[in-house]
Amino acid sequence: MRYSVILGNLGNTCDRFLSSGYKEQPPKAEQWRQAAAIPAVAGIELVGSWDITAATVGEVRQQLADTGLKLVSIIPDLFAQRRWGSGSFTSRDPAIRRAAVGEVTAMMDVAAELGCDLINLWPGQDGFDYPLQGLFDRVQDWWMEGLQACADHRQDVRISLEYKCREPRTHCSLARAADTLLVALGTGRTTVGVTIDTGHAFMAGENLAESAALLARHGRLFHLHANDNYRGWDDDMIAGSLHLAEYVELLAWLRRLGYQGWLSMDQYPYREDGRAAVEASVRFLSGLERRLDAFGWPRIDAAIDGGDVIAGQRLLRQIIGLEA
Amino acid sequence: MRYSVILGNLGNTCDRFLSSGYKEQPPKAEQWRQAAAIPAVAGIELVGSWDITAATVGEVRQQLADTGLKLVSIIPDLFAQRRWGSGSFTSRDPAIRRAAVGEVTAMMDVAAELGCDLINLWPGQDGFDYPLQGLFDRVQDWWMEGLQACADHRQDVRISLEYKCREPRTHCSLARAADTLLVALGTGRTTVGVTIDTGHAFMAGENLAESAALLARHGRLFHLHANDNYRGWDDDMIAGSLHLAEYVELLAWLRRLGYQGWLSMDQYPYREDGRAAVEASVRFLSGLERRLDAFGWPRIDAAIDGGDVIAGQRLLRQIIGLEA
Amino acid sequence: MRYSVILGNLGNTCDRFLSSGYKEQPPKAEQWRQAAAIPAVAGIELVGSWDITAATVGEVRQQLADTGLKLVSIIPDLFAQRRWGSGSFTSRDPAIRRAAVGEVTAMMDVAAELGCDLINLWPGQDGFDYPLQGLFDRVQDWWMEGLQACADHRQDVRISLEYKCREPRTHCSLARAADTLLVALGTGRTTVGVTIDTGHAFMAGENLAESAALLARHGRLFHLHANDNYRGWDDDMIAGSLHLAEYVELLAWLRRLGYQGWLSMDQYPYREDGRAAVEASVRFLSGLERRLDAFGWPRIDAAIDGGDVIAGQRLLRQIIGLEA
Amino acid sequence: MRYSVILGNLGNTCDRFLSSGYKEQPPKAEQWRQAAAIPAVAGIELVGSWDITAATVGEVRQQLADTGLKLVSIIPDLFAQRRWGSGSFTSRDPAIRRAAVGEVTAMMDVAAELGCDLINLWPGQDGFDYPLQGLFDRVQDWWMEGLQACADHRQDVRISLEYKCREPRTHCSLARAADTLLVALGTGRTTVGVTIDTGHAFMAGENLAESAALLARHGRLFHLHANDNYRGWDDDMIAGSLHLAEYVELLAWLRRLGYQGWLSMDQYPYREDGRAAVEASVRFLSGLERRLDAFGWPRIDAAIDGGDVIAGQRLLRQIIGLEA
Repeated sequence: MRYSVILGNLGNTCDRFLSSGYKEQPPKAEQWRQAAAIPAVAGIELVGSWDITAATVGEVRQQLADTGLKLVSIIPDLFAQRRWGSGSFTSRDPAIRRAAVGEVTAMMDVAAELGCDLINLWPGQDGFDYPLQGLFDRVQDWWMEGLQACADHRQDVRISLEYKCREPRTHCSLARAADTLLVALGTGRTTVGVTIDTGHAFMAGENLAESAALLARHGRLFHLHANDNYRGWDDDMIAGSLHLAEYVELLAWLRRLGYQGWLSMDQYPYREDGRAAVEASVRFLSGLERRLDAFGWPRIDAAIDGGDVIAGQRLLRQIIGLEA
Repeated sequence: MRYSVILGNLGNTCDRFLSSGYKEQPPKAEQWRQAAAIPAVAGIELVGSWDITAATVGEVRQQLADTGLKLVSIIPDLFAQRRWGSGSFTSRDPAIRRAAVGEVTAMMDVAAELGCDLINLWPGQDGFDYPLQGLFDRVQDWWMEGLQACADHRQDVRISLEYKCREPRTHCSLARAADTLLVALGTGRTTVGVTIDTGHAFMAGENLAESAALLARHGRLFHLHANDNYRGWDDDMIAGSLHLAEYVELLAWLRRLGYQGWLSMDQYPYREDGRAAVEASVRFLSGLERRLDAFGWPRIDAAIDGGDVIAGQRLLRQIIGLEA
Repeated sequence: MRYSVILGNLGNTCDRFLSSGYKEQPPKAEQWRQAAAIPAVAGIELVGSWDITAATVGEVRQQLADTGLKLVSIIPDLFAQRRWGSGSFTSRDPAIRRAAVGEVTAMMDVAAELGCDLINLWPGQDGFDYPLQGLFDRVQDWWMEGLQACADHRQDVRISLEYKCREPRTHCSLARAADTLLVALGTGRTTVGVTIDTGHAFMAGENLAESAALLARHGRLFHLHANDNYRGWDDDMIAGSLHLAEYVELLAWLRRLGYQGWLSMDQYPYREDGRAAVEASVRFLSGLERRLDAFGWPRIDAAIDGGDVIAGQRLLRQIIGLEA
Repeated sequence: MRYSVILGNLGNTCDRFLSSGYKEQPPKAEQWRQAAAIPAVAGIELVGSWDITAATVGEVRQQLADTGLKLVSIIPDLFAQRRWGSGSFTSRDPAIRRAAVGEVTAMMDVAAELGCDLINLWPGQDGFDYPLQGLFDRVQDWWMEGLQACADHRQDVRISLEYKCREPRTHCSLARAADTLLVALGTGRTTVGVTIDTGHAFMAGENLAESAALLARHGRLFHLHANDNYRGWDDDMIAGSLHLAEYVELLAWLRRLGYQGWLSMDQYPYREDGRAAVEASVRFLSGLERRLDAFGWPRIDAAIDGGDVIAGQRLLRQIIGLEA
């Protein structure tokens, strides 16, 4: 598995009560150095506006060269400016919808320029909050129009839709794996796929491996974000802090499915040191991967193929060393 | 809207703690009379094993004639016998999978014989409970094989897949609207569609109208079951006992979408009189429909088209008479 | 019922993705005017730092005089400064704990000076995020020490603890009604009570009326905040936008319990006009109160005393005019 | 830690869809043999009606002698007979309330006769389902009256109240740890305490160790039931199949708190072999205990006392062998 980090994880984090954030913001260059210093991390993911714009391509190229990190994807800013407040690709305002396409295609160009072939598109502000507010028939049309325009802009950069069921809207559009896969397939463009954020999948009541298998079946599992939560909200905690069995199952299935992409840390360490929190996730995931490697993937596959709960539970106890 | 009732709602109901049930089971004939006596109810839905088998077609025909009720659908028993305990269409045992297809095709024949064109297929036992238990790649294949066999058995009876995310498995297969639509579309058969059970949709975190619009967009909104719950579990309560705004929105969208099917009561009135509990649901829904009719659908459509939250909330207060 | 508003509801609102907020911040004086202009609103609630400090008592006194609003409570700022980021009354740092007591006692003095007898204490940052992080034995001691110090500072200003189970921590201290009542009772001070925020109660899986009855039984139901949500998160939406039956039941029980306090709007209208959103809540609640008044409280009390579900549901349909 | 088993875990299990159950019911004597054969299990817990009645005391005494198991507690049947369908201790029918007290005191006598000093009282049917159905003021009185009568019946058998927030009612009475502690304290009897069922605590959004610490602070942590679930429902799965960090924290805190009671397996292995499923739980818990013992409790206590998330996460990775 190839591990990467979203740069912003290393910066300051705020919430609605403490909008100035819980800690000091390290300088951007320091964040780059911290990311590169985490063992096993080989890639970086950047957020538009926050980490990269058309104007800062040169600086980013330099950072990539200096750190040796690979640019894994760009996440266009469709959520952190007031103009997106009521939606981007599915705003009721056609000018906003055009601006969203413009933002994404601009980032596609930037990505290509930096040798990156993936846009991770998270449309946080698209959706609705109240009953009677959603215009469901048009929203699907708008997704098609916008995504087709982006996909047709250039074929050498893929677009991966990151689903999330709620926050910042009470009901986000592209809420779950299957809804989002339907949209991706509906565009009729093979360069449009889906990102699983493990925390978003937990929050949606999904099983990680099941969602991965569904997307892979249709050839649309493009990217993965990792973190953890208590299943009720996108807590964006250290991966493995709460879930273990689901991560074992995910790693086993990614292998079965022949997943070739990256596993990118996506956290919000409000009160923790950013670098340490991200490193903890990478240590958990890469440590687990090594452990499973030593344990033997065929034994794990056999357990999955057998489907016996008692055997599966024994295997889990063996994996974590509670039983010989 | 045409209203119907699942016959079993009028019978006894048990749970895992009180397996003998909370009340006396009225005789089947009495249940039929009670269903027919509920104002606005014109149709009946029957569960295999419990309400109908190949052997009792004659009796059922007589009850239909006596009560004047239309047979709206048959729900094949894929959940109430020990042989289905670990799945039906996606059991790991091929003999069980064949038996599931056999059960459904038998019920399709029975339905056709009784002038009914709809099978409501709820595969409660398909799914998994524990991490490492699911065989996700094969499960999708098995759905395709089984459903295609059923759909090809005869084209004059449609098959509507009722999704539910959990119970009796911790993770049911066909969990959500979009997952299930993907399966329906994947069969390549236009006679395979989807049922929304409003309680299942609430439990999955879905918005009723949004799910209806998605299914209708693909021509696969075949059927509707109504009840209510607290969003965390399939409480199968009286429709409207907890949700109002979502039902207003659903009725408005069913009209916008040109839905031509039935709205069937599907409850589990454990401790209440069955007939009274079902009647309460019908009274709520038909009363709300009349109210919206008097209020004027164009005003509601205008609110949806406008998408203004403040206006939408005023409309809701007006609909329930809190404001002029 | 006496209605009030938290002033900040009329200002800008941000979240972690759009930290600059979704709209323009109206000037403070304009917010005061807007609050006073909402029909049925007679009181105002102020947040420390944001709306009031020791230095601005004079200005606030003037605003109260100009608008004729009663100061209902002050909510000390224990959450919007970086120093509170890891807790206030239960911080592991004794200096922070002392500062929290200082902040509250200072606001008690300010309240008294302005003729207000209530502090609404919401300790958002107290709690923990991860397993192994909480120091549960000491946390209870710290609550006792801090609250006793505050209560003993002066007896003419009561302290009402606003419980909330999560956000901004994954596990907040003072999470639910009963936990918080235990703390209030544990102080041995009768001036320490509890605030129900209706949204927090929904999020905790509580029934509003049941929580109110529990607190009132112990003489500790001091205050109420109103809003609405989808039960999984503190969405802080317009009251009544999602729940109706629970609000009917709450109003009926507040009357049965002889509640003499205020009902204060506490919302986060991210994308809506603040004044309009707050007014919508007040219109819903006061409109519902008038409706129940006209309907007749004895009929509602009789339904509660009877406990018959079918009768209770008919009553609800009658209240909203779906049935005669 | 002393481990025990609820005998019924080894029997058949049904749900509302498959009321005849998912497997063959082994003979009662076989269930006893199976329980005794599970390594590390030294105690047994019996359910009234199902496993023990006044008439079968002799048989039970013989089984205890034959197997060498200690009778840990009796769980009176307040849920599996139709007469309890609308409540036991808080039924609106005074005859039912008297019957509930009679059932519990009878089981207290049986317990004493068999050398057992604990009644685990789970009042599943007490609570309400719908808004307007609860009689909250009286319910608290009825709890006091009934529990005081039981506690005063004899002081040598303690009564431990097992809380659960939902199922079989949508809102159970004695829903959460603190609510139940308030009732226990309210009786004024020191022999009334509280049972934590780990799955019920997860379902209520509680942290296991925090609830244990709260109850222990008041001297009322009497008993523990262990299982696992996905946090949204009482899935009654194998302990440790889903949660690990919380169980590490719980074991550490039980030690800190000086807990002297039992840890009893309470599962519903619908589709698994009962003995194997229970054994899996015991193997997980006792294996984890041994692991922590080898790891060193002082290191774990130091992590808790320090409260540093990064250090706590490293400790967890070390405990499961992912890091040296």
